[in-house]
Amino acid sequence: MATVKLIQYEEATPSVKAVFDDIKMTRNVPDVNNFWKSLANHPETLQRVWNNVKEVMGDGAIDSMTKEMIYIAVSIANNCSYCVHTHTAAAFKKGMSDAQYQELLAVITLASTTNNIATGMQIPTDEQFLK
Amino acid sequence: MATVKLIQYEEATPSVKAVFDDIKMTRNVPDVNNFWKSLANHPETLQRVWNNVKEVMGDGAIDSMTKEMIYIAVSIANNCSYCVHTHTAAAFKKGMSDAQYQELLAVITLASTTNNIATGMQIPTDEQFLK
Amino acid sequence: MATVKLIQYEEATPSVKAVFDDIKMTRNVPDVNNFWKSLANHPETLQRVWNNVKEVMGDGAIDSMTKEMIYIAVSIANNCSYCVHTHTAAAFKKGMSDAQYQELLAVITLASTTNNIATGMQIPTDEQFLK
Amino acid sequence: MATVKLIQYEEATPSVKAVFDDIKMTRNVPDVNNFWKSLANHPETLQRVWNNVKEVMGDGAIDSMTKEMIYIAVSIANNCSYCVHTHTAAAFKKGMSDAQYQELLAVITLASTTNNIATGMQIPTDEQFLK
Amino acid sequence: MATVKLIQYEEATPSVKAVFDDIKMTRNVPDVNNFWKSLANHPETLQRVWNNVKEVMGDGAIDSMTKEMIYIAVSIANNCSYCVHTHTAAAFKKGMSDAQYQELLAVITLASTTNNIATGMQIPTDEQFLK
Amino acid sequence: MATVKLIQYEEATPSVKAVFDDIKMTRNVPDVNNFWKSLANHPETLQRVWNNVKEVMGDGAIDSMTKEMIYIAVSIANNCSYCVHTHTAAAFKKGMSDAQYQELLAVITLASTTNNIATGMQIPTDEQFLK
Repeated sequence: MATVKLIQYEEATPSVKAVFDDIKMTRNVPDVNNFWKSLANHPETLQRVWNNVKEVMGDGAIDSMTKEMIYIAVSIANNCSYCVHTHTAAAFKKGMSDAQYQELLAVITLASTTNNIATGMQIPTDEQFLK
Repeated sequence: MATVKLIQYEEATPSVKAVFDDIKMTRNVPDVNNFWKSLANHPETLQRVWNNVKEVMGDGAIDSMTKEMIYIAVSIANNCSYCVHTHTAAAFKKGMSDAQYQELLAVITLASTTNNIATGMQIPTDEQFLK
Repeated sequence: MATVKLIQYEEATPSVKAVFDDIKMTRNVPDVNNFWKSLANHPETLQRVWNNVKEVMGDGAIDSMTKEMIYIAVSIANNCSYCVHTHTAAAFKKGMSDAQYQELLAVITLASTTNNIATGMQIPTDEQFLK
Repeated sequence: MATVKLIQYEEATPSVKAVFDDIKMTRNVPDVNNFWKSLANHPETLQRVWNNVKEVMGDGAIDSMTKEMIYIAVSIANNCSYCVHTHTAAAFKKGMSDAQYQELLAVITLASTTNNIATGMQIPTDEQFLK
Repeated sequence: MATVKLIQYEEATPSVKAVFDDIKMTRNVPDVNNFWKSLANHPETLQRVWNNVKEVMGDGAIDSMTKEMIYIAVSIANNCSYCVHTHTAAAFKKGMSDAQYQELLAVITLASTTNNIATGMQIPTDEQFLK
Repeated sequence: MATVKLIQYEEATPSVKAVFDDIKMTRNVPDVNNFWKSLANHPETLQRVWNNVKEVMGDGAIDSMTKEMIYIAVSIANNCSYCVHTHTAAAFKKGMSDAQYQELLAVITLASTTNNIATGMQIPTDEQFLK
């Protein structure tokens, strides 16, 4: 169903296998998911995206689980079905509780509501926010 | 510039003034911002939205500042200029640090990138995520 | 501020003037707005879009004012500032009342909310809707 | 396929059953659809959204069928597959004719076209619309 | 699964058959795809859209294959699954190489990233771009 | 108006100045634009984004000017005002003609139209495109 072939571990080139190994080890999973198998068609992009993910998504000033919640928020707003599924699973795996999940959805839907109100009435930004 | 009149506190009906007072007291501000002044044209909606905001945005299983960060994420993805300005200010006011802000933006932009990749290659969701 | 020059009536070619005249007469206005002045840089597109507008936006199985309300809804969801302004004005000019306007905004914001919920939880479409 | 369990009527808590009963009675259907079964995981949100729907979607200054058409418009622009299916069915059920449906789609697609043109050429909003 | 019936060639009216014949001949295919079968429910729209496609998508100042790449870009950003599939196939059929496809996806994802950065930080457009 | 300070060349740290110098030299401009001045608040992101831009946007299997046209397409669909302005200017600077620009806009608007039609009628992807 993808527009490209899904490259399985066994058929991957050595450089792709190296990235797959790093993902599997970092995430403690037996196999990489379809996202990485699709990206494997272009090893440079695969490498660059995986490096970005490692650099951005670990614990930092914001903890890793909260970062997954933010990721879910963007993916819902952008309507990316694949990403909503995978990052929701990731957030739960990193410790998101049912209560947190429900609050997350409540915040996201409230935000879309007020986004629409602001756009609908073309509300001018208050001076104080324009420094 | 709005499609409706901005209702100032002095010209508001008593029921609208009551909501304005509640906002000012809850947020510890001298005046409500343009969003509420625009909504004031329809007192029922004003009341309902403010109630939703109070119900959803306070500290809960997710703390209030993190909720603002999620709000920023949705507003950026939805491209709502007004909301990006106001909620960025709110997040800083609730204690978001510059480091957290930068990490927030990094997560948001990474999410949009991978959203696009998933959509671009029409990547099928892995079985394990479809329960 | 546009990426193209706004072509004023006086400087327009005869074929563009003809379209401008048709717009002014159909809408009973003294001048066309910036949208048409921008499109005038490409007379074929100007002609095609104006023809589409005339064909689609008049009274039909759906009346013209309701069509403007639908137009506002799409423009808000697509976040087109220019279109929100112009079509809100058009809807009021065609008889939309304040009560209808408020209900329109309420429906739009509710729709965005439930769109988000459906996407957020990746709700599968019920069999009955898939015929 | 949803990220949450679909709660069937038989397994629902009494408060959720009460909301389900209200939906079934109001809509004259034998069972609620997947949207409500998903929301049932969070009874407060279920209650709040159902209340909003009842409050906003009935006949008012805008009739209920027209409100469904507006809902379809937003759902298409927001690309919500679930909502497009369910609200298209609802609109037909409330009396939308094939001719109205086709005109609705024509208006929606024309709106997206002109939204793009306005954004593409960054057309400045005319003074008259900025009051 | 569509909200309308897919009209097959055999059951089409003469005017619809004429458009189907034109599509099949222009594209050198044995049957039209589901997009046209769905549009066939409204012959005027079918005719207008096909005319637009013929007028816009052929070789011009921009060659036809590059136009398909642009089409893919818009369809990804707009998250249209159907269009991503069909136009990706069309681009390959018109000669897009794997290297071009990968570069196309790289540009699209980079664009979404910087779109988000600009929106996230509400970056003001430099004077030089506002003429 | 940005949510961050715009860092001017004179006040930049040495590492940021180094990136600014590279941008100015690569693009043959006397000063970097506001996008880079905003990103300069986070030197790691500045460096990473600039590296991505250099890597992705030069002549390759797709020439650099065509890449700018694709960038415009995504930025319009994503409604990023800043990016539409800057990349339209960049495309013209790299040799895009008025005729190409008009065709670009025509393709983009046609794509949005058909995206909407496909979403509106929930058209199922033909088997042949699902391999």
